[in-house]
Amino acid sequence: MKKYKRIQRVGALMKIFTERPNHVFSYNYFAEIFNAAKSTISEDIVIVKELVEELQYGKIETITGASGGAVFIPSISLEDTKTILDELCVMFAKPDRIIPGGFIYMTDLFNNPSIVDKIANVISAQFINQELDYIVTVETKGIPLAIMCGKILNVPVAVIRRNNKVTEGATVSINYISGSSKTIQTMSLSKRSLSENSKVLIVDDFMKGGGTAKGIYDMMQEFKAEVIGTAVVIETKEPTEKLVDNYISLLILDSIDQQNKAIKISPNVKLLQ
Amino acid sequence: MKKYKRIQRVGALMKIFTERPNHVFSYNYFAEIFNAAKSTISEDIVIVKELVEELQYGKIETITGASGGAVFIPSISLEDTKTILDELCVMFAKPDRIIPGGFIYMTDLFNNPSIVDKIANVISAQFINQELDYIVTVETKGIPLAIMCGKILNVPVAVIRRNNKVTEGATVSINYISGSSKTIQTMSLSKRSLSENSKVLIVDDFMKGGGTAKGIYDMMQEFKAEVIGTAVVIETKEPTEKLVDNYISLLILDSIDQQNKAIKISPNVKLLQ
Repeated sequence: MKKYKRIQRVGALMKIFTERPNHVFSYNYFAEIFNAAKSTISEDIVIVKELVEELQYGKIETITGASGGAVFIPSISLEDTKTILDELCVMFAKPDRIIPGGFIYMTDLFNNPSIVDKIANVISAQFINQELDYIVTVETKGIPLAIMCGKILNVPVAVIRRNNKVTEGATVSINYISGSSKTIQTMSLSKRSLSENSKVLIVDDFMKGGGTAKGIYDMMQEFKAEVIGTAVVIETKEPTEKLVDNYISLLILDSIDQQNKAIKISPNVKLLQ
Repeated sequence: MKKYKRIQRVGALMKIFTERPNHVFSYNYFAEIFNAAKSTISEDIVIVKELVEELQYGKIETITGASGGAVFIPSISLEDTKTILDELCVMFAKPDRIIPGGFIYMTDLFNNPSIVDKIANVISAQFINQELDYIVTVETKGIPLAIMCGKILNVPVAVIRRNNKVTEGATVSINYISGSSKTIQTMSLSKRSLSENSKVLIVDDFMKGGGTAKGIYDMMQEFKAEVIGTAVVIETKEPTEKLVDNYISLLILDSIDQQNKAIKISPNVKLLQ
């Protein structure tokens, strides 16, 4: 069987850790794929650990003992967070994004994997030390972000539907009042998609009045879930009083001036402290 | 400014390439982040190239000249493909997935990032040598997969909606006939989400009669798009004649026996040759 050089194993380890952050890999697993002794792997991990710290990628935590292993916990520097938020503001504020009705077209950004990946890295870093079982979102625009957060935080995603589908099995449905339009809406979640008593992080693209987030909160109570936090990409400045508290947003949308084709949006300074 | 050892740079390069497959990074970019000469980076890349090939992760292609760079093109071995398809069959065939109406509950699997990631790797490998501009899917269950494929193939995703939304701006809508239920359905795609004359890969979770896929084809014609291929995770064995041809599926669903609680599903052998 093939043997690999240390520099090759270290490179391969970085690939494996990067592909699956927050997942504990056993030394036995590495020993097998690299055809190397566990003591050798252990030395490799020390090098990886040092490089991850020096390059500010986060940290490698090791679990000692017979079932020993290692896990990569990514993080993001304040400087990188600032760069990402500034880039996002430039993208979201492009005047030609204004569409009839005074809305901003954002779908392309929320469906672009490399942009969503950056947003997910910023959000995940805020919750990296929390114990989590699920990411919860409501269809449709927040799904890519929820999946990317789920990948980084290594938890599955539960997607609340606007309609009841036959392929979802038994569902729990609730009615809620949209915070901004004051209309009654329905959301449904398959009973199978979330175990009771789970710890969840709610992720969504946009928050105006907070009605949808409040609806998700209410839904979570039906599942006896504990909401660890709520993260949205953009919140509107007005109304300042949302229907939920204890949420974080990345960007704050101040105003959309249809006449002069100007969008005022800025990074949430709370994330940059 | 900090200097890094070769083994650290090689580890960091593997992280950067893994995070963004199919993206061309310039040597200048690496030289800057590692504070190293371009000739040094060039030597690092040779080591990375060798390790990627030896460990069968795919290949590193280098672009020479003043604007020289390198790109990681991932691949997946036949053996790994087989392992993934077998694992998927076991997961999809669990008897307790059968829900009233003779459907299989699959949502949890399509919303699990690590499972979706594996599926996306198998699908992407089939189209890695094709020039692509977009992944196209229709809401809701295929979105996570489309995003993961988009990440691997480094292209954005366009999501066709079942309903028209005010936040999508001008849309193109078409009616289509569901292949299995023979009902007329509508789908809409924002004009902004797909440039005309694009090359697209259609991705979806499930195909029975092929009506939805046919609908997406028709929609693509409205955008003058060229459909490079269609990939679905599961196709049903019956009907054998689908409304579209030129598609690949990962798994073939033979039968669901509600009485005896048995699901017959198998890997598509075409992918294992």
